[in-house]
Amino acid sequence: MREFAEPFRHGWRQAVEVRATLVDFQSPFQRIQVLDTVPFGRMLVLDDAAQTAEAEEYVYHEMLVHVPLLAHPDPRRVLIIGGGDGGALRRVLAHPVTLARQVEIDGDVVRLSRELLPSISAGAYDDPRADAVIGDGVAHLRDTAERYDVLLIDSTDPVGPAVELFGDAFYRDARRALGGTGLLVTQSGSPLVMLDELKAARALLARHFPIVRTYVCSIPAYPGVLWSFTAASEAIDPARIDLAAARSRLRALGAPTGYYTPAVHAAAFALPNFLRAALEMDDDGDPAPLPPPVPGQPPR
Amino acid sequence: MREFAEPFRHGWRQAVEVRATLVDFQSPFQRIQVLDTVPFGRMLVLDDAAQTAEAEEYVYHEMLVHVPLLAHPDPRRVLIIGGGDGGALRRVLAHPVTLARQVEIDGDVVRLSRELLPSISAGAYDDPRADAVIGDGVAHLRDTAERYDVLLIDSTDPVGPAVELFGDAFYRDARRALGGTGLLVTQSGSPLVMLDELKAARALLARHFPIVRTYVCSIPAYPGVLWSFTAASEAIDPARIDLAAARSRLRALGAPTGYYTPAVHAAAFALPNFLRAALEMDDDGDPAPLPPPVPGQPPR
Repeated sequence: MREFAEPFRHGWRQAVEVRATLVDFQSPFQRIQVLDTVPFGRMLVLDDAAQTAEAEEYVYHEMLVHVPLLAHPDPRRVLIIGGGDGGALRRVLAHPVTLARQVEIDGDVVRLSRELLPSISAGAYDDPRADAVIGDGVAHLRDTAERYDVLLIDSTDPVGPAVELFGDAFYRDARRALGGTGLLVTQSGSPLVMLDELKAARALLARHFPIVRTYVCSIPAYPGVLWSFTAASEAIDPARIDLAAARSRLRALGAPTGYYTPAVHAAAFALPNFLRAALEMDDDGDPAPLPPPVPGQPPR
Repeated sequence: MREFAEPFRHGWRQAVEVRATLVDFQSPFQRIQVLDTVPFGRMLVLDDAAQTAEAEEYVYHEMLVHVPLLAHPDPRRVLIIGGGDGGALRRVLAHPVTLARQVEIDGDVVRLSRELLPSISAGAYDDPRADAVIGDGVAHLRDTAERYDVLLIDSTDPVGPAVELFGDAFYRDARRALGGTGLLVTQSGSPLVMLDELKAARALLARHFPIVRTYVCSIPAYPGVLWSFTAASEAIDPARIDLAAARSRLRALGAPTGYYTPAVHAAAFALPNFLRAALEMDDDGDPAPLPPPVPGQPPR
């Protein structure tokens, strides 16, 4: 029996049984694997880190996309940086947008995902509103004069190795492109095993945006399962949604969801007390916090 | 490097690094191990299933105890069935109760937990309001004429091997002992890898209680991390709390929490759409659901 497991983090890891390796390819940017796993079907693995899998991709993509798109009053133009598997593009196109532009740096990720994981993009690339570019999203944002209502950073960890890429200049450009009224969301890692990186990402965002909000969900294929996204904006607080209006807009999309509901949207911002405290959020009368359940020590 | 891992469930498992085995003992009821783990400190393992660990026990115990005790308007008499590590007893005693009775069947679990995991009970057994009995909780509930405001089922899986034990007769006795105004909470397993068992547990509870409510949290040491509890009552819906009142009562306890806050309490009942649908809950206008991210198939 073969298994795939990311390295131990703080002495903790998950493993999935693997039936077969469908591809193992070195692109100019990274190692790309597609594994057929027992629990989650086909799984995309980049540089030995699980990215998404057929049976659970909806958790990540719905929480990345539907939270900002239903928090924004009228999102028309959306930019996705990364997102080569097409799952975010597909959820964006479920909304009445006029443009869903995806800028993915690694054309091989797009090619192999379309070939081996077609249920994830599910035809999104054929939508006339989709503009799938192979290129450097950071450079695009630096050089463009275009405005976007929502910016989604759907990359390998922007809180890890790519932190330089997603640095001060990037978020300054993002703020400009959002024109004062938009919002961005980035995946921001595991609050359990990458808490320091999450704190660093929030601190960086807070230098550029007055509103910075972290929310969580349970992504089965990711280390620690509990996972965070962080939204930032000059104008929109995505934690404050009108439940009835969000239900009405979501119903109009006609898109089934596996994880997202407007109630889940609102609840996702209620952070466990250790996390609320670690992120130095207003305590609002909550009790004194205990330390995080996984200590921030390196693996021994 | 040694590791501890429960068996694969649906092709998925977690592992923790182990520094040392502090005890490995066969009691009349079960195999009891206390392991010193890298991520979570000392961990109690019963019949090869992780029960609780020093660094993360607060998630389970706070969500088991504070949710019902703050949902109840004035909990005075509390019965815990199981709970031999003392973590639930300690959280119950943080409230202004007059009686916290614990009926644990395995005296060796109590003895070894007090000796090797003293930070979990943290002196609770010395509280004059604590009545720690070694005995059969099911028989106690059958034979007692006493009333309880809150009943906590803190056992090895009442949704798994012990399902006969926690069957119809048990819940009939529980309803009687709760006197129409109390509520019970049982841990009800992983919504990801034990979904059928959770559904069975809810169906059983629904035969005896008009209000049955499942809520979730993230317990790092448990399989799949995402974990469920189910509350049942004739009178109290624990999902409906007055946030301001709960904050005030919690603040009065003076007990720090690592996970629980009143906002987390309310949010815990907002279930992911696949789970809401699997539990056949009212859809309240929510979108059509996708299937659960982990298929309910046996490991191959």
